[in-house]
Amino acid sequence: MRLAPLVLALAVACPSLSHAAQPAATGLSAQSLDAAAQLREQALADDTGWKVVESLTTEIGPRMAGSEADPKAVAWAQAKFKALGFDKVWTEPVTFPKWQRRSEHAAVLGEHAQPLTLTALGGSPAGNVQGEVVRFADLAALEAAPEGSLKGKIAFVDYQMVAARDGRDYGNGSRIRSRGPSAAIRKGAIGYLMRSAGTDSHRVAHTGITRFDEGLTPVPSAALSVPDANQLARLLALGKPVRVQLDLDCGWDGTATSYNVIGEITGSSLPDEVVVIGGHLDSWDQGTGAIDDGAGVGITMAAGHLIGQLKHAPKRSIRVIAFANEEQGLYGGKAYAEAHKDQVRLHQIGAESDFGAGRIYAFNTGSPAAEASRAATAKIAEVLAPLGIEYAPDKGGPGPDIGPSAAHGMAWAWLAQDGTDYFNLHHTPDDTLDKIDPKALAQNVAAYAVFAYLAADADGSFGSEKKEVTPPSE
Amino acid sequence: MRLAPLVLALAVACPSLSHAAQPAATGLSAQSLDAAAQLREQALADDTGWKVVESLTTEIGPRMAGSEADPKAVAWAQAKFKALGFDKVWTEPVTFPKWQRRSEHAAVLGEHAQPLTLTALGGSPAGNVQGEVVRFADLAALEAAPEGSLKGKIAFVDYQMVAARDGRDYGNGSRIRSRGPSAAIRKGAIGYLMRSAGTDSHRVAHTGITRFDEGLTPVPSAALSVPDANQLARLLALGKPVRVQLDLDCGWDGTATSYNVIGEITGSSLPDEVVVIGGHLDSWDQGTGAIDDGAGVGITMAAGHLIGQLKHAPKRSIRVIAFANEEQGLYGGKAYAEAHKDQVRLHQIGAESDFGAGRIYAFNTGSPAAEASRAATAKIAEVLAPLGIEYAPDKGGPGPDIGPSAAHGMAWAWLAQDGTDYFNLHHTPDDTLDKIDPKALAQNVAAYAVFAYLAADADGSFGSEKKEVTPPSE
Repeated sequence: MRLAPLVLALAVACPSLSHAAQPAATGLSAQSLDAAAQLREQALADDTGWKVVESLTTEIGPRMAGSEADPKAVAWAQAKFKALGFDKVWTEPVTFPKWQRRSEHAAVLGEHAQPLTLTALGGSPAGNVQGEVVRFADLAALEAAPEGSLKGKIAFVDYQMVAARDGRDYGNGSRIRSRGPSAAIRKGAIGYLMRSAGTDSHRVAHTGITRFDEGLTPVPSAALSVPDANQLARLLALGKPVRVQLDLDCGWDGTATSYNVIGEITGSSLPDEVVVIGGHLDSWDQGTGAIDDGAGVGITMAAGHLIGQLKHAPKRSIRVIAFANEEQGLYGGKAYAEAHKDQVRLHQIGAESDFGAGRIYAFNTGSPAAEASRAATAKIAEVLAPLGIEYAPDKGGPGPDIGPSAAHGMAWAWLAQDGTDYFNLHHTPDDTLDKIDPKALAQNVAAYAVFAYLAADADGSFGSEKKEVTPPSE
Repeated sequence: MRLAPLVLALAVACPSLSHAAQPAATGLSAQSLDAAAQLREQALADDTGWKVVESLTTEIGPRMAGSEADPKAVAWAQAKFKALGFDKVWTEPVTFPKWQRRSEHAAVLGEHAQPLTLTALGGSPAGNVQGEVVRFADLAALEAAPEGSLKGKIAFVDYQMVAARDGRDYGNGSRIRSRGPSAAIRKGAIGYLMRSAGTDSHRVAHTGITRFDEGLTPVPSAALSVPDANQLARLLALGKPVRVQLDLDCGWDGTATSYNVIGEITGSSLPDEVVVIGGHLDSWDQGTGAIDDGAGVGITMAAGHLIGQLKHAPKRSIRVIAFANEEQGLYGGKAYAEAHKDQVRLHQIGAESDFGAGRIYAFNTGSPAAEASRAATAKIAEVLAPLGIEYAPDKGGPGPDIGPSAAHGMAWAWLAQDGTDYFNLHHTPDDTLDKIDPKALAQNVAAYAVFAYLAADADGSFGSEKKEVTPPSE
């Protein structure tokens, strides 16, 4: 009975230690909750998020990491943070190998000659190969093919991704993209084709990073649009050999340096502690990166901006990060985690918006020591409830660029977006501004503003605690 | 009172004269109507139409007039007619100028540099031009621009087509495509861009034939995808000059000869008289020509096939035509009209299916002397009614390739398809098999089978009557 007041006193005196052995429950004041509810309504009526996405996708457009547009995007983000009233704006360097796409063509040869719409997978080498196509229903079927059975042939993994609100089938789609080429090479293949990891029915192929296992010689690897995969499957079903010519001009070319661009709204009483929110600034090259991830940049910049406009700043600072090169291996998120690994306990919590622009439907937080903040998380969820968001205890996890920091012990928040349509557009030329519903975007801004404000103004932590980690996987 | 029996006697003795000064009403026997109703139900349960479209779009794929795939499509159509049991199969030559598309690229230059997705308009010359873009809301605005005001510039007509069941706004879209380039050249433009004549929101541009008025030097002319037109309009709205580089490699190259491919089901008592139905065999090059016009070929081949399977053939023959090169100027339809202009009265009636694969919702017929067949048309509509088709007196007109024959006096039927979604796909890479609903296609087959059977088995004509004509416009 005597211990509790002592812990409480410690917690008040040293909030950053409040996650110690027997922490007090993290608190949210009535005043803070009221302010958050007002902020929510204000954000719903505000179009800052939309304007930011419009500006980025229009004025910069595609901005693949290492491309000519990459530094333009970095300059744009710095200027936008400043224009939106962020107190501090800076950049942190991120270096990575540079991959370039120059041209890509493919065609069925022979009796049924016709072109195929496809796109090189990120990381594919250049090459001009011609061979008979061998179809596999999924990755397991390719992996089960006899050794050497694809010698001189082109593997085709024909798995159709299924749409779901939580996008869970992207597990299959992204595995086929990342592991398929190496599996095909092991069987002797000279080229790799996959049905796009997508749920649309348009002649736009879905790119995305692939990798080749060490010791293998990479082969040209590409994704067919869904209608083209259907067409190739139908041609194969005719029962005669189908030969395809695959011509890719693309490949790795040295390294490039880009930047995580960071804007901060300074906290009132604990300015060195930060709530991190963000999206990634880079995009793939064929769309204009609207849902992936102009939306995340716009949502979190707008949320930070709206908090910055309040009369009374929350206790802690709001740090908005536009991460560099997420697409090719979380380079920005890894660089941030590495640069800030000794400041884990100064990071109250972090969340990335990187699953499109659909409405948020669920919320949760997590950390190495989450117990004390469970009630606060539920309270935040109550303020989010009018947005159609439910509290989902024990669900979720950190967004991609938050992952490396979470691996170091940083608490994370999960604001789950409806991704039913996400893989209609993801990594395709169709990822353009017109696909975003401004009202859904404003709902996202409202949710991020509420969450970030309350987390920043809380009495006590969400359980960030430094831990030793094995390097996060890509 | 004595005249009527005489006319009736003449009509019975000489059916092809039954449209004379005071013709008897065209009749449909109860037996014929019963057979048509049975045919309708049989067609709804039959997948021949689907299989024909699947075969054409898969085995041949894109088949632009004059391309390497064109003779393959001709051979395919002959073989398919034979396989479907048509009694007579033949070809009639169609010669036309050959246009080729090789490559097409465009990009915004300068501060907001980014690529644009577009496609050359059919008939565009090759060229590499660079200039400031001047936007016009519609064709009238371009035509109203001061003389010389576009010197060294690129015109951009930014009209957004509106979707409608009857596709009526294609009037605007196709005018902007056919007349816009000449209007731009008259003002001094070095290049022409238009927002695609389309109602979708995908990164697929809508091609289609254009032409240049005599005495003008053609300039590179292309259509931007709808999202790219949005993007260009937003960039222009920033208020600074926008320069675009337009690189098209395409153009005319001599002439080519293709063929109208014709299959006939022989009539029982008036085999020299024919009901013509058909679609066009050619397609644009970027899709696989599923809705434009694999569907029309499949619907009418299947309708002819099903009539050919009946125990009792209708009186007249069913002639199914897969027209050559509709897309670049109705060459197949014009060649047919010219070759058969002295047989107008042997043509009972004609109809082309060339508005996609949506359900038919209305029916009508017309001719130079339609009065006597009004009641028969209404009777046919009654048999069509269970398909959700209504009789629409005084509406409609001949399909594109029927137009030139109708201009010579051939009666036409109008089976109006729901085209609400048609201009989402029309003339784009997205015109692929997966866009066709097999049930809607079967409804079309049922309607064509009913109409063709009853028109072929009618007592009396639909008013075909040779007339002197001015050449039909394209």
